[in-house]
Amino acid sequence: MQTDLSAALDIGGTKIAGALVDEHGRLLVRTTRPTPADRDGATVLRALAEVVGELTAHPEWARVAAVGIGSAGPVDARRGTVSPVNIPGWRDFPVVAEVRDLVGARPVVLVGDGVAMTAAEHWQGAARGYANALCMVVSTGVGGGLVLNGRLHPGPTGNAGHIGHISVDLDGDPCPCGARGCVERIASGPNIARRALERGWRPGPDGDTSAAAVAAAARAGDPVARHSFERAAQALAAGVAATAALVEIEIVVVGGGVAGAGDLLFVPLRRALRDYATLSFVRGLTVVPAQTGTDAGVVGAASAAAQQSRLDAFAPTA
Amino acid sequence: MQTDLSAALDIGGTKIAGALVDEHGRLLVRTTRPTPADRDGATVLRALAEVVGELTAHPEWARVAAVGIGSAGPVDARRGTVSPVNIPGWRDFPVVAEVRDLVGARPVVLVGDGVAMTAAEHWQGAARGYANALCMVVSTGVGGGLVLNGRLHPGPTGNAGHIGHISVDLDGDPCPCGARGCVERIASGPNIARRALERGWRPGPDGDTSAAAVAAAARAGDPVARHSFERAAQALAAGVAATAALVEIEIVVVGGGVAGAGDLLFVPLRRALRDYATLSFVRGLTVVPAQTGTDAGVVGAASAAAQQSRLDAFAPTA
Repeated sequence: MQTDLSAALDIGGTKIAGALVDEHGRLLVRTTRPTPADRDGATVLRALAEVVGELTAHPEWARVAAVGIGSAGPVDARRGTVSPVNIPGWRDFPVVAEVRDLVGARPVVLVGDGVAMTAAEHWQGAARGYANALCMVVSTGVGGGLVLNGRLHPGPTGNAGHIGHISVDLDGDPCPCGARGCVERIASGPNIARRALERGWRPGPDGDTSAAAVAAAARAGDPVARHSFERAAQALAAGVAATAALVEIEIVVVGGGVAGAGDLLFVPLRRALRDYATLSFVRGLTVVPAQTGTDAGVVGAASAAAQQSRLDAFAPTA
Repeated sequence: MQTDLSAALDIGGTKIAGALVDEHGRLLVRTTRPTPADRDGATVLRALAEVVGELTAHPEWARVAAVGIGSAGPVDARRGTVSPVNIPGWRDFPVVAEVRDLVGARPVVLVGDGVAMTAAEHWQGAARGYANALCMVVSTGVGGGLVLNGRLHPGPTGNAGHIGHISVDLDGDPCPCGARGCVERIASGPNIARRALERGWRPGPDGDTSAAAVAAAARAGDPVARHSFERAAQALAAGVAATAALVEIEIVVVGGGVAGAGDLLFVPLRRALRDYATLSFVRGLTVVPAQTGTDAGVVGAASAAAQQSRLDAFAPTA
């Protein structure tokens, strides 16, 4: 039988998704379980094993050549372990060894979730055809990944492209990571809402204090709400400009819930980029919304698995 | 005859150096001219042509397989042009075409000077044997380059690793590049001296207001002088931590005149890195002084030429 599929696992703080993905990025099977994130590690593993079990029980499983895992970080691809911030029961958890026990003699590839999303956007989305790209998720956190010289750049531990935790304000507010003034500390959804609240924005009668509610207020003309998005855009622009100066990129793809605010984020982001990306070789960056949706995690994990297993049918061509 | 040499040109605001370099990094021939940086472009080109002429006239010239040019930036490797900030007569100057006219049918490779220094450190210096490295020059300006996956990463235009112009203080002082709070604006030698003077440091009877004089005062116990180095170290640390989060590196190599201050820079730099490089995969970075000296420019240009011409004898192995 032809082994032309990748199995993919997408491990997040809310859900664990699994899929069988073909060489065109189509999902033949898809399954998901809620992540019991507040439970012990063994309970979380059981949820993962159920997802894997549904895949291995499927008639098409025999076609699977490699297994890709995209996980909330930090991950350690060298050791095959993960320590997702939002899954306290898993610290240095040997997810690769556990999955290997369930899937037989197949290569198992681990990358961070930002890297997986980037693989998806490069293969099927807005970064398709670009040799050098930064893809980002701006949501509860800020994550990302890089494509360099036409290939995914996961880095030795699978965490490269971690734009959320670069400091763009070295004297700024302490970040939970331990540093100060990180992009995530300024630009994530919860921080957009926090800043608006601190500066006097008040939610409507429904009490919704999400970034989406701030976005609605900004669209209705609230200057504090609007300013909070502009400040987030400024921090993102400084981080994007730093990335461009460091590795040279041609395109920036932005996904995640905060990117759903559309022009409210993209217009000030492109404007602020003109302020921070000034050198000849970083000017004129293309900034576009992500195209892959909720399946980005599994599609990207499948692509990363295929690329690192050298199944070139899955690798995007630049 | 065996073609086992690289010719190298190192173009800076002060001098233009040329050399013939063998596959062990030894300089068989070395020549230099002062850069007539305040003159018109044709005059600067004549100085470059004299350097090239000395190399092509040498009996060993027939052994040259490729020509590498490392130049003060910005450069544009795609177009083969350079616009060195300190050589106003050259703007979008077609240096590759001009050199090609002088050297016959040989590949000519152009990279920025930070990339060239990085190639030298990876081939012959402190980054030898590392698969992922950031090499920096902290001097009149702040430049750098990257080694990723065991290979030099010049980027499409030859400018990658431009750590001097990433913003670590998004609301900070305007930088001549047009952005704010760039690493160079805080950490370069002239900015170390400027900050010390602004805060009340006064030079000795010789009137020396260089960063070296500030370093001497700091060593003698002057708290303002010491603080200016600590602030530079903090900005460098934020930039290094950003680089590590974005691409994953194992070692940071720091050269240039300011690095000559030794512990005065390296001790607070390593301390500040603990504050900014906090995620598991960026902790524990090795930070060391550069090992290649004044010849780094030509050695690195030779290595870059050999690597990009696929003469693997010159390429370092990771």
